[in-house]
This record gives sequence, C-alpha cells and structure tokens, in this order.
Amino acid sequence: MATIGDIAVAAAINIITALIFLIAFAFLRLQPVNDRVYFPKWYIKGLRTSPTASDGTFVTKFVNLDYRSYLTFLNWVPAALTMPQSELIDHAGLDSVVYLRIYLLGLKIFTPIFLFTWAILIPVNWTNNTLEQSQDTYSQIDKLSISNIPHASPRFWAHVAMAYLVMIWTCFMLKKEYETVANMRFYCLQSENHRPDQFTVLVKNVPRDDHESVSETVENFFLVNHHDNYLTHQVVCNANKLAKLVKKKQKKQNWLDYYQIKYSKNPSKRPMMKTGFLGLWGAKVDAIEHHETEIKKLSDEIAEERKNVMDDPKAILPVAFVSFKTRWGAAVAAQTQQVRNPTLWLTEWAPEPRDVYWKNLAIPYVSLTVRKVIMGVAFFFLTFFYVIPIAFVQSLANIEGIEKAVPFLKPLINIKLIKSFIQGFLPGIVLKIFLKLLPKILMMMSKFEGFLSISRLERRCASRYYLFKFVNVFLGSIIAGAAFEQLSTFLNQPASRIPETIGIAIPMKATFFITYIMVDGWSGTAGEILRLKRLIIYHLKNIFLVKTERDREKAMNPGSIGFNTGEPQIQFYFLIGLVYAVVTPLLIPFILVFFGLAFVVYRHQVINVYNPKYESRAAFWPDVHGRVITALIISQVLLMGLLSTKHAAASTPVLLALPVLTMGFHIYCKGRFEPAFTRYPLQEAINKDTLDRVKEPNLSLNLKGYLEHAYIHPVFKDDGSDDHYEDGTPIVPTKRHTRPEPSRTNEEEILQEKHKP
Amino acid sequence: MATIGDIAVAAAINIITALIFLIAFAFLRLQPVNDRVYFPKWYIKGLRTSPTASDGTFVTKFVNLDYRSYLTFLNWVPAALTMPQSELIDHAGLDSVVYLRIYLLGLKIFTPIFLFTWAILIPVNWTNNTLEQSQDTYSQIDKLSISNIPHASPRFWAHVAMAYLVMIWTCFMLKKEYETVANMRFYCLQSENHRPDQFTVLVKNVPRDDHESVSETVENFFLVNHHDNYLTHQVVCNANKLAKLVKKKQKKQNWLDYYQIKYSKNPSKRPMMKTGFLGLWGAKVDAIEHHETEIKKLSDEIAEERKNVMDDPKAILPVAFVSFKTRWGAAVAAQTQQVRNPTLWLTEWAPEPRDVYWKNLAIPYVSLTVRKVIMGVAFFFLTFFYVIPIAFVQSLANIEGIEKAVPFLKPLINIKLIKSFIQGFLPGIVLKIFLKLLPKILMMMSKFEGFLSISRLERRCASRYYLFKFVNVFLGSIIAGAAFEQLSTFLNQPASRIPETIGIAIPMKATFFITYIMVDGWSGTAGEILRLKRLIIYHLKNIFLVKTERDREKAMNPGSIGFNTGEPQIQFYFLIGLVYAVVTPLLIPFILVFFGLAFVVYRHQVINVYNPKYESRAAFWPDVHGRVITALIISQVLLMGLLSTKHAAASTPVLLALPVLTMGFHIYCKGRFEPAFTRYPLQEAINKDTLDRVKEPNLSLNLKGYLEHAYIHPVFKDDGSDDHYEDGTPIVPTKRHTRPEPSRTNEEEILQEKHKP
Repeated sequence: MATIGDIAVAAAINIITALIFLIAFAFLRLQPVNDRVYFPKWYIKGLRTSPTASDGTFVTKFVNLDYRSYLTFLNWVPAALTMPQSELIDHAGLDSVVYLRIYLLGLKIFTPIFLFTWAILIPVNWTNNTLEQSQDTYSQIDKLSISNIPHASPRFWAHVAMAYLVMIWTCFMLKKEYETVANMRFYCLQSENHRPDQFTVLVKNVPRDDHESVSETVENFFLVNHHDNYLTHQVVCNANKLAKLVKKKQKKQNWLDYYQIKYSKNPSKRPMMKTGFLGLWGAKVDAIEHHETEIKKLSDEIAEERKNVMDDPKAILPVAFVSFKTRWGAAVAAQTQQVRNPTLWLTEWAPEPRDVYWKNLAIPYVSLTVRKVIMGVAFFFLTFFYVIPIAFVQSLANIEGIEKAVPFLKPLINIKLIKSFIQGFLPGIVLKIFLKLLPKILMMMSKFEGFLSISRLERRCASRYYLFKFVNVFLGSIIAGAAFEQLSTFLNQPASRIPETIGIAIPMKATFFITYIMVDGWSGTAGEILRLKRLIIYHLKNIFLVKTERDREKAMNPGSIGFNTGEPQIQFYFLIGLVYAVVTPLLIPFILVFFGLAFVVYRHQVINVYNPKYESRAAFWPDVHGRVITALIISQVLLMGLLSTKHAAASTPVLLALPVLTMGFHIYCKGRFEPAFTRYPLQEAINKDTLDRVKEPNLSLNLKGYLEHAYIHPVFKDDGSDDHYEDGTPIVPTKRHTRPEPSRTNEEEILQEKHKP
Repeated sequence: MATIGDIAVAAAINIITALIFLIAFAFLRLQPVNDRVYFPKWYIKGLRTSPTASDGTFVTKFVNLDYRSYLTFLNWVPAALTMPQSELIDHAGLDSVVYLRIYLLGLKIFTPIFLFTWAILIPVNWTNNTLEQSQDTYSQIDKLSISNIPHASPRFWAHVAMAYLVMIWTCFMLKKEYETVANMRFYCLQSENHRPDQFTVLVKNVPRDDHESVSETVENFFLVNHHDNYLTHQVVCNANKLAKLVKKKQKKQNWLDYYQIKYSKNPSKRPMMKTGFLGLWGAKVDAIEHHETEIKKLSDEIAEERKNVMDDPKAILPVAFVSFKTRWGAAVAAQTQQVRNPTLWLTEWAPEPRDVYWKNLAIPYVSLTVRKVIMGVAFFFLTFFYVIPIAFVQSLANIEGIEKAVPFLKPLINIKLIKSFIQGFLPGIVLKIFLKLLPKILMMMSKFEGFLSISRLERRCASRYYLFKFVNVFLGSIIAGAAFEQLSTFLNQPASRIPETIGIAIPMKATFFITYIMVDGWSGTAGEILRLKRLIIYHLKNIFLVKTERDREKAMNPGSIGFNTGEPQIQFYFLIGLVYAVVTPLLIPFILVFFGLAFVVYRHQVINVYNPKYESRAAFWPDVHGRVITALIISQVLLMGLLSTKHAAASTPVLLALPVLTMGFHIYCKGRFEPAFTRYPLQEAINKDTLDRVKEPNLSLNLKGYLEHAYIHPVFKDDGSDDHYEDGTPIVPTKRHTRPEPSRTNEEEILQEKHKP
C-alpha cells in the first residue's frame, strides 16, 4: 500500500516530467525549423508560408535567436484559450469543437463532485478508527476512503446519499450538454452554405436489371417515386485497381521531380539509378529517362483501366449518390423505405464527399450480417483471449527458441548483454507491439464490417477500444489475472457475487489508479503537445526522403484528433472518476487536473496542429453520452457490491434504484436527443430551402451543375493528382493511421505486468 | 415416474373427453335455439337471420327434429377446411388468417422433426442399458430419452447433429413463413380499396400556441412543411365524459323500448316501475313516462357537454389525425421527423378508426417514459413475486381468520361440510381468481403504458403473458418452487450453472408436459369449440335480460380470437416442442396432435364465430417470429446445460455455435422482413396512388369529404347510437375482455400445486 508520501513523490516526478515536456515544447516551437511540426494547420489553411523561405541569415532560418520570445514561453496557453467558439468552428470544424467539450464536460461533472465529496465524505471517513483497530497494515489514504468505515455503520448512508448526488448531477450535466451539442449541430446545419451532402442521399443495393444500366435504373426509379424532387445522380465505379495505379504513378512522378531538380542543380552529371529492389542492385540506367518511360507506361495503363471502368457495366457498383432539388426532398428520401423488399434501394443520408470510404461501397448487403456476426465473435476472442497468441509468440522468442531456429546466431546470442536484452525485453516488446497495433486491428475489423464512411469507422473503433480497455485495463487491474481467467471465474460464480468480487477490490486499487492518472493523463498529455515522435520523423524525412515541395507537405502530416483512440481514453477517466467518487474521493482532484490540462493542450493542438479528415457535425455525441452513462451504471453496481460486503444491507434496495433511474434517464435522452444526430427534420430542411430560394433565386439552375460531380471517386478528379477541393480541404479517402497517439505507457505496463511469463 | 401405461390411460381419458366435447358440440350446434351461439359471425355479416323467426312449428324453432342431420355430425370439419384462403381473408380478415398460420407453422416445423427424431434418436436412445444398470427406478419412457445414454458416450453426437437439424429446419420454415406473411400483408394493402388509415397519419404532441387553436396550428404546420400533400385534418377532443353520458342514455333508451313493447302487447296496463336500486324499492312510477323524462334530461346534459367539448379549447387534445392527398404523402409524413425537437409533432401511421384506443390519446408524451419504467418494474414484481400477496390473502381466508373477522358467522362455519369446503377450496379459488384476472391485469398495465391502438395493446399483453408463463409455468414446473425463490437461487449460483440446473431436470419432466399437452391442448381445444360458458351465459341472458332485439344481438357476443391470451398459449407449445425435440422425442407427436386439432377448431371458429374488433393486417407477425426464435435459443442453451452434465464436454463448443447462429438468423430476419410490418414503402404507395388515379379520376375531389370525418370520436357519430360503419363493420373502441378463453385448467393446477400453503 502506497502512503501519501509515495503519492507525493510520484506526483512530483510526473509534474516535473510534464513541465519538462511543456518547456521543451515552448522552446522547440519557437525554432523556425520546427514550424511545420507545430503549426501545420496554418500551412494547410494557407495562412502561413514556410519560414525557411523568409528573409534573414542562414542561421535564423533554422534557429530562433530572438531571446525576447523565450521569456514568454507559456503564452501559447492564453492564445489557445482565447479563440472564441464560433471562430474555432470556422477554423477547425464542429467535430473538433465538440470533441473539446468532452474535456469541459469532465470538468463540469467532477468539479462539484470534488467539492461535495471532500466537504462531506472525507470527514465522514476520516473520523473513524476501523483501520487503526484492525490488524492489517493500512496507509493514510485508506483512512480517507470508505475502507475506514466500520461494518454496518449508519455512516454508509452518507455514501448512499452521495451516490444519488453524483447520479443526479452527472445526468443533469449530460442532459444539458446533449441539448447544447444538438443545438450546435442544428445551428451548424442551418448556417452552412449549401453542401453536397445536404442534397444527396446514398442509395445502396440498387437491383440489377438485364435491360438497363444501373444509371438508368436509378434515374427511372427516382423519377417515378420522387418525381417532384429528383434532380440528378452519380453512379459509383469499382475503381480500386485504378486508384492503385494512380498512386503508383504519383510515386514515380515524385521521383522524377526529384531527379529533375537534382539534374538542374548539377547539369554536368545526369542522375543514374539502379532498377532493382530499393535501388540497391540491378542494371544502372539514366534515372530521368527511366522514370519518364515508366510514367508513360503507367499513364497508358491508367487510361486503359479508366476506359475499362467507364465502359464495363460490371465495374459499376449497385450504389448511387442521388441528389434532389431541395433539402426537403433529400430528407424525405433518406428517412423513408423505398420498396417492399427492405434490403433493396436502401437510402441513407450521404456522408461528406471526403468522408466516404470508397472501398466498402462494393460490399454486397447480404454479406453484411455475416460480417457483423464474424466480427462480433472475433472481437470477443480478441478481448478475452488476446493473451494466448502473445504468450505463444513470447514462448518462441526466448533464448532456446532462437538458438534452435537460427543456430548460426548462437555465438552472438551468448554474449551476455544481448542475452539479457533478449530475456528482459523481448517478451515485453511483443506485447507492446500488439498494443500499438490494436487500434489498427480494430480499424481493420471495422472496415471488414463494411461501414461506408470514415467517421462511422472511427466511431465503431472507439466503442470497441473502450470495451477492450474496460475489460483488460480496468477489470484487469482490479482483479489481477488474464481476461479469460476472469471470464471463467465469472461464469463459475453466482451472478450476485460478481459486483462484490470487484467492489471489494476497488478501494485497494485507488493508489494504483492515481499513479495511472498521473503517468498516462498528466505526463502523457504534456507529451502529446511536444509531438516528439512527429518531430523526429519530420526531420528524418526532411533529411532523407523529402525530394520535392509536395513531399515536404506530406512529411508535415499534422494527423487528426484521432477519435478512435482519444475518446476511449477520456472515457476511461470518466469511468475511474465515477467509480471512485464515492469510494475514494481523494482521487478526484487528480482527474480534474487531467481534464484541465488536456483541455488546454488539445485546444492548442486543434488550433495549430490537427487537420480533421472529415466533418461529421458531432455525429459522435450519442456515443460519448452513452459511454458516460455506462460508466455511471458500472460505478453504481460496483458500489452496491462493495456495500453488500460491508453488511450495509439496508442500503441495497435504495442503491438498486440508482441503475434503474439511470437507465430511465438514458432511455429518455435517447428518445429526446438522439434523432437530432441521425435524422434531418423536415421543418429545418424546408426553412433552409426557403431561405436559399430568397437569397439566391437562381440557385436551382446552378444546383445541378454543382451536384453532378460532387461525389466522384477521387481517382477521377484530374487524374487523382489534385487531391484538394476548391475550398482547400483535402479529399483523403485513404486509411488514417497517422495520428500522434497519446502516450499509453502506463496501460501497456499494466498489461505487460499481468502478462509476464 | 409415469410409465407408458400411465400415459396411455391419460391419453385415453383426454381423447374421450375431447370426443365428448366434439359430439356435444355437433349436437348442440344443430339446435336452432343455439344458432346465435355457434354462428354469430354470419348474423353479424347479415347473411343469416334468426332461426326462431323462421317458419315451422313452435318446437322446431328450438329443437332440431331432423334425424338425418345428426348422422353427419362431423361434417363441420371439412366445411371448416374447404373455405379457400382468399375467401377467408374477405370473410374474417387478414389477421385471423395469419393467426391460423401459426398453427400451420407448428405442423410444418414439427412434422419433419417428428420423423427425423423418431427415425434416428429413438433407436439411438433405446439401444443402451444405462438405466437398467443404474440403481434408480426408471420407466420405459426414460429409456426412449437422452437419459438412457451413458456418460461421455460418442452417441451424443447424434443429439448434437439433431439439434443442428432442428435449428436449420426451424429457421428455414420461419424465414419462408415471414416472407409469405409479409407478401400477404402487401397484397392485402394493394388490393384494398381506399381506407382512411392509408391516407392518414396520427400526429401526437402538437405544441400549444397561445394565439392559435390546435386546429389552426396543425393546418399551418402541414401547409408549410408538406405543402404539396396536405389535405385535411381532424383534431381529437377529450370526450371521455361525453362517452359516459351517451352510454347511460343508451341504457335508458333500451329500457324505454322494453316497456313500450310490453305496453303495446298489453295496452290495458301501463307498465310501472320502482325508482330505487335495481327497481327493488322506492316510489312506484309510470315506467314509460319516467324513462322519457330521464332520457330528455340526459339529452340536455349531452347537448351541453357536447357544446362544452366543442367550444372549450382545453378539451381539444394536442393530437390530430392528418390526412394527405396521396398515400405517398402520408407514407412520407409517417416515416419522417418533422421538427428539431423529436418529442414534438410525432407522426405515426394512423391505426384503423375502429382500432384507435381513444382514451390514451390524452396521455402527454413526457409521462410515457415514466409509465414504461413503472410498468417494467411492476411486471417484474408481478412475475416473480405474485405469490406473496396471494399467500397473504390465503392466510386471511382460513377458518380462524374468517371467524375473527365476522364472528356472527361462527355457527355457520362450524358446520362440517362448509368448514371442509373453506379449508379445501378457498385457497385454491384465490389463486384461480388471480389467474383468471391475469390477462385483464396485463391489459390494464398496457393501457397504463399509453399505447394508442387496441392491436398494440394486445400485442404488448401477449409478450408479457408469454414471459409470465415461461417463468411460472415452464421454469416453475421444471424446478419446483416459487419464482422468487428461483430468482434468488439463480442470483446466488454461477451463471454457467443455471442452464445445467434446468437442463438436468428437463428429461425428468417429460411425462408431466405430455399430460399438460393432453389436458390443456387436446381437451382444452375441444372445449373451445363447445363454447359451453358462452352457451350458458347466452341462454341465461336471453331468459332474464334480453328485452329488445338489440339486447339479443349484444347477448350473442361472439368474442374475438384473443391474440393476447391465445398466441402465448401456442408459443408455449413451440417452446415445449423445441426443448424436448432432442431430449425426449416421444413428446413430439402429442404436440403435433395439438397443432392439427387446434388448426381445425380455430379455423371453424374464425369462420363461424369470432368477430375481429380490428384489422392490423398481420402486424403481430414479428412478435410471433421473435418468440419462436426465443424458444429455439432457450432450447439450445438448455441442451448445452444438459450435455455438460453428461460429461460430453467435446460437444460444448459445437453447441455454442447454435445460439450464435440463431441470433444471426434473427438479426438477418429483422432487417429483411420487419420493416414490412412497420413502414409503408414509397413505391407501393405511389403504385397504388397511380392505380387509383386511373380507376377513379375524380377520386381526389371526393377524398376530402371521405376523410374529413373518418377519425371522429365514436361518441360524435350520430349520438353514438349508430355504432356501425357503412360497410357493416362495427366501431367498437371499448375494452375487450369478452373472449371465450380456452380452458387453462392444467396450468392453473400447476400453480395451485406449487402454491399450496
């Protein structure tokens, strides 16, 4: 058991670490050479030009020599906080702004809880001497927790009352927040200019007709069934192969640019290259000529493939983006069932053009259920049994295994240093690699399930990641042992014993979670702003890989806020906070510090760094809300389990009402607010239509031209080389796995700890 | 343990009972005096006039003297079977026809299961001698069941394979049936002439406006948001008080008719009556005059109340029936969200006018969630703890309690016969009364929840009744003990032990369920066709109460098929059949006999007796489908539990796939077929609209007049005295609790048995 002194030392270490990160950041961001790492958002918006191109001496291009700027090294904090919300929405999009509200929600929920629990529960807990009388060792922290209350004491009513207070306050804040976010979403929809997705519906599973092309079928169908509203449509081609070719050509083009620049700098020597693997061997040829012929060959291939895609009716997928004359028409089509067979002519509100995940449009509807079931089962096994394959790999990766597999390395392995390295680190590294890969594995699973937009893929990943963390980090830390062992324990235990088993272990783990918050929450968040990994990669790329200006832009790679990994992390703090609010109130201020620090840091990052890949207009909020509710219910059930072991039986029926009331609140919220995130009310649509008609009387004439090519596969847009919209937002239908992940050090350590052979 | 001989005796007794019922029915139905009891449907359709009014001697008016008609006393069976389906739909409605298909589904599912299990499992089970070697007593029936297989025998693979076969066949039939019913529903919707509910949408939660009436608000809203489609609307008044007055007036009018007829028959004597309670005391007055003044007084009151309702804006509920020019317009309005706040302007497809449950239209939306939660909790306690209040009442209803409460009855109670009656029957009667009241209690609970149509009320009741039967009859019979005792056992047992505990008890209860099927299924169904209770009540009413022709029509009271109690009964047989299919195949033929007999009997009743109160176009099928799936999953889980106690561990993973696959199938069906029962596809709507326009070019002119008064509260229809539509179908928005319930003898006995103090 850690004492208060231990906690203080840990806190000091983490505060110092965080401060070092912040100071390093303050220093590094002022260097012009790092400008593209710390302010990429402004480059993308075109509001900042490369500082290396500015005037000045050679040195000042790379290092900031102005000492005055170092004196105000923390001025990014007020700068991050002062940008008003409306401006921030314009700058970074509604998604980012609402994402930041999750941190604010944490502050709003836990600040009053902190005040109340410290004012009431800490004195109630402290003024007992249960622990002093008991034979067990204990620390001062336990004296502040519920452990210090004697069995069957009437003081437990204070905790029960506090549990009610926590529920009421949390639900109140959740409801207010849901309302605010829903209104922000509507306001955003109403204030936006026309966007293609407001007029367009994604139609899936268009039935094949032998006598008509897909395009004709779609046109006829909507002319008949939505005769007053139908405007135009775009069919979707299976252009996956074409996209691959175009990508290849881009790469070659890049190399060509590089060699041409090289040649222009030194015209005396034509650049040469080897044709083999990575340019390491093979025949030596003239690089410019070689690439020119290669590109020409690829261009021909692309032209042919494009012709194939265009002409081959089989390449046309049974999917179409159908646009309507009015928002009302689109809202009607998106919300209604079209034909008798509900698996044909499926309509849904189209995602933004850049949010479309084109590859999955080709998945037929019938396989979706199967895919869902398969992935459900796979996820179950991943969560509970992931340790088994890792243990297997670890067992292979020991000294004897390696000696057997590659006998010629034997002398090398027997060197003491290398031996101890293998024995000490290799098993841990295997697990670490797995955990680093986990978000990518989850993303692959979601892609396999067939979601059609990147935003929905990320939302799915987030909920699975949260579940994984709940089972393997939360439950795994409280009850030591691998998840599948817990599973068998739970199956072989009475249902009512499960909350007790966990509940009884909770107060004992408080110090552990406090340390977790400090390492993962404090230092991790401070590390996020430093972007050390990105900084190094950028400079490495800049030195070794960057050949052209376009490469430099790519190397800049701002990443995005990473909903799929970031949101589960925040939710984990909600879970810990709610579980410990009544049990060990000492933990709450640590969480408050996390929420406060993270809010400032991420607001800064949203303003200066991240470049969102899509804008879903806060469509993720129902998930956020649902997970906080889940955390609340888990905390209530665990409290019930804990109190039932404390012989406070009288309180059980009173506690039983808590999860019931919370569920009732959730059902109410689902009915009251969720539709705002899934449907487009007709009144809103018609209001906006009317406004449009007044403002731009000839809009309906231009609309067709505007919508006709809005949903074209990015590969068809000017040969794919132009991957930017007119308004400067890039269309990036590629996989996203480039987000700077917040340090997960502690979590990985837990899993490694649990898993030591 | 019952032997095969015992079963044979029970079977003989029940077959004889059933035959007696059938012969009695065949005899009674030929008597003209019973004609209105056995053929009310034809009277209601106006295809049969009273046989008492036909020519013939006085005796032949009451008794059938034609001996030839007795010779063919079973000819109702072919008559019941020969009516073709399309004619039956016209005659009795789609609901009844689809309801009969549930019995057919039972035959279709269990006939092949019967053949396969008898061909394979019975030999596999029989050719062991586990039971002979064991010390326990056993019967020949157990020798045919899974109990006869030795532990860890490879023969269990036959049972596992059979479980797969059962699942595949059941799912296949379910899918086919879902498809057929969905198509029947669409065919029905397409072939019907225009009906008000096809053009009308029920709008709930119209927001109040201080400056406009509800009617104006509704009109403005739909003129703006559905400008091309809106036709007309009807607001709903809170006419509950008015309805009460009108009912009272009708009663008086009836008495007046009676006295006038009496007077006209015997003009010499004016009929007199007493004004007091039930005409037993009070001042003697001229009956005709008295009633005439009373009626006049009531008429004035009604006129005043009607004026009140019409004029008072507070009497107008925030609910309206909005009609559209086309089915397309109605389908769009019903399926879309209207405004930003999803709790305002709620639209749903309007129920048939006669299906509307007017009283609940007044319930505000905000209270619905609360009502749902309250009823959920109440139902939980009703299911698991209903025994407690009954035991309490029973403890009051003993000899000493009565002696204490009413001491002056002491001498009477001490008479031996009465004493033993009280001791022996009173506790049982209390339980019996509760079980008789249960469907009514469930209906009251559903009404409290605020469903707006009678059909949805009945569907809700059915699912709750099924749950109650599952817990208290199925689980209660397998594991003796009150439900709340089981609940605590389950909570204090490991989760994996629950299926084992039940599974191990299942083979032992096979003979009990065979007896149950024969008593409740065979004799009960045969008793249903006899309508003995109805027959007696009809004749009693005819003698004592019937004063006018209208009274006689009322006394006829055909009842309806009673979905809320009938469907759970059938589902219970699906449950038993699926659970025992693999465990004790001997049981299957008994179920087959039930399904066959019940199909014939209920087909006859649907043709000749029942008069459906509403037509929901088979909207209940998703519930039916879902409950069969539930039964299938329960059977699979229990088999898993049973086999795990048989040391057939190798089969567990293979069995684990069964419920997963079944759930997958269910999800698929939900997506594929359920929308057919909740939504109206736009293509169907527009096809029908186009057809209408071609067939009746001036329909749109007449439509407004047709729809303007379709959804008027029945009390406003010609003073409520005319409770029939133009097409002869009655509008009866009253509570339905008059259905002849199939005998529940055995089930009640079980509950009484369990409950003996």
